[in-house]
Amino acid sequence: MRVSGKHLRSIELADDGWSCRIIDQRMLPHRLVHAKLCSLEEVARAISEMWVRGAPLIGVTAAYGLALAMRADCTDEALTEAHRVLFSTRPTAVNLRWALDRLTKALQTACPSDRESIAYKMASKLAEEDVRCCEAIGTHGLTLFEQILQKKSHSGPLRILTHCNAGWLATVDWGTALAPIYKAQAAGMDVHVFVDETRPRNQGASLTAWELVQQEVPHSIIVDNAGGHLMQHGLVDLCIVGSDRTTASGDVCNKIGTYLKALAAADNGVPFYAALPFSTIDWTIRDGLREIPIEERTPREVTHVRGRAHDGRFEEVAITPSESTARNFGFDVTPARLVGKIITERGIADANEESLAQLYREGGESS
Amino acid sequence: MRVSGKHLRSIELADDGWSCRIIDQRMLPHRLVHAKLCSLEEVARAISEMWVRGAPLIGVTAAYGLALAMRADCTDEALTEAHRVLFSTRPTAVNLRWALDRLTKALQTACPSDRESIAYKMASKLAEEDVRCCEAIGTHGLTLFEQILQKKSHSGPLRILTHCNAGWLATVDWGTALAPIYKAQAAGMDVHVFVDETRPRNQGASLTAWELVQQEVPHSIIVDNAGGHLMQHGLVDLCIVGSDRTTASGDVCNKIGTYLKALAAADNGVPFYAALPFSTIDWTIRDGLREIPIEERTPREVTHVRGRAHDGRFEEVAITPSESTARNFGFDVTPARLVGKIITERGIADANEESLAQLYREGGESS
Repeated sequence: MRVSGKHLRSIELADDGWSCRIIDQRMLPHRLVHAKLCSLEEVARAISEMWVRGAPLIGVTAAYGLALAMRADCTDEALTEAHRVLFSTRPTAVNLRWALDRLTKALQTACPSDRESIAYKMASKLAEEDVRCCEAIGTHGLTLFEQILQKKSHSGPLRILTHCNAGWLATVDWGTALAPIYKAQAAGMDVHVFVDETRPRNQGASLTAWELVQQEVPHSIIVDNAGGHLMQHGLVDLCIVGSDRTTASGDVCNKIGTYLKALAAADNGVPFYAALPFSTIDWTIRDGLREIPIEERTPREVTHVRGRAHDGRFEEVAITPSESTARNFGFDVTPARLVGKIITERGIADANEESLAQLYREGGESS
Repeated sequence: MRVSGKHLRSIELADDGWSCRIIDQRMLPHRLVHAKLCSLEEVARAISEMWVRGAPLIGVTAAYGLALAMRADCTDEALTEAHRVLFSTRPTAVNLRWALDRLTKALQTACPSDRESIAYKMASKLAEEDVRCCEAIGTHGLTLFEQILQKKSHSGPLRILTHCNAGWLATVDWGTALAPIYKAQAAGMDVHVFVDETRPRNQGASLTAWELVQQEVPHSIIVDNAGGHLMQHGLVDLCIVGSDRTTASGDVCNKIGTYLKALAAADNGVPFYAALPFSTIDWTIRDGLREIPIEERTPREVTHVRGRAHDGRFEEVAITPSESTARNFGFDVTPARLVGKIITERGIADANEESLAQLYREGGESS
């Protein structure tokens, strides 16, 4: 994607050929700051403290974390420990486990002295696959957008509501939920995006809005409370979100608050789509509400807000009484019955086991 | 209500006998700052800039605004102008119109020289009525709480979710949605309140939480996105909210985001109540979605957050890219079909025209 006119990816191998260059997303939208990750520990910290976030990007970053670990120590013990450390950084996103398992399995059977180069190659392959996946999601999603635009007889822009950030900052490039929007823009379609700010960490207000500014996509930021009102008044043509984990039956676990938007979409007949790579589907589970562990994060993300003060400094301000406590759940589960379509790199499925499994079978080799 | 052990009302006649003493609610929860309103202009500013807010409190404050206007100039022209100025401060709350019309009607037929004293008397009467109303709402609401607690066999605390602030800070004393909670506490009931932070102005995180701290009611602050997840997991026994305007048919217009919580409550079989004085019912309208004007406020409430910096200063921080725009709708409408019961000072009604009208007839003289 473009940033100030230049092409940029959310994660890249640095010029030194071994360290990992990421965007420290905590500084957005106010500053574009790159960071270099040089060790397993730095990668683990970058994931758990959310310098990087988004299920696909977490997976790729963790893969580079394994490569860095093998560079430092290629023994079996080091491999086991690196898997453990990285796996514990975030509990909800299934891509993390998927990427770690995939690399670890290959590395375990490899000769220790080959592990470093194998890990780097696999991490790089994972990143390239993610880019192809996301672009394909964009292409498939665009066909749905075109259908909806046709239904409304092309009157006015296609008005899209999205929650959190499922853009290129959540992946390596393109994004998942935002990929069809970028494809639509490239195809000359008139779009307007309503961006949920997405408390508590404001990934919509800070990351999605920043991406859309960079790509010059027309948008309005709204509070998370506003989407229902917009849909009641016919101001939203479709909702599209990403997913951190999807069950075999089509339940979508995504950023907290997604479920509320899905309810409003259902109540107002607005199409609700989840866009996700196949790697986000956890084929081992069927009941998202019971089986997906929901990360509970520090109350401080609720009680304090970080932003740019008038003099340009970053400042964190308290917005609650110091005597009050807060609860901070990271994700919720939108039951399959509320999900209209699931857009994957292999095509579009209904949110049910049969339809997802059919795409999987048709897709041939697992991506 | 108690603040640091002392009884306090949200609005009172000052010791000078003519000016009006309010709490500047923009400073909460960090500082308790009183302000003195000495003129029509100061009252209008305090309402439009939300030093005071909450439908019932807006009504009472506007009544004192008329009294201050009559004190300065008791002519017909001044009365008309005062009504116009105050009426234009906030478009959604019906109590504002109700209070202004009630006073203006009486003042128009009065001798100009009597207008000042009549206006002060009526404003004071309005305030006293509001206190009685809210306490009665508390008493009626408590009976519903008791029923729900009985149904869950008194196992664990009664877990209540509320949105925005419909506490004593939104009224003169007691509150509407919080009144039954205070009554429950007084009756020795074990309660726990989930407080929606209520973006964009955070009235839950700042005002409701502050009230509950003062009254020592156990509570947790959550982001507006979290309520659906809590309800899916059986962690909420009931939702209770206030109302800024209620149609004759039971549609409830309340702080933006209320509708999303009502949808989640319906989806999970959680009782959803609106607590409101009769003065909040607009008997002239039946379709809340079409007929209630929704205030759109400055985008700055979305793009910036105000709070207390680590050194105690108040600071406003930007949380969005400076190039992005925002939309800021103040309220939404929850259709009657999603509202379980409406709790008023006259008793409890179903959210439909017949049930509300019956309470009205039974209630005798309009309060």
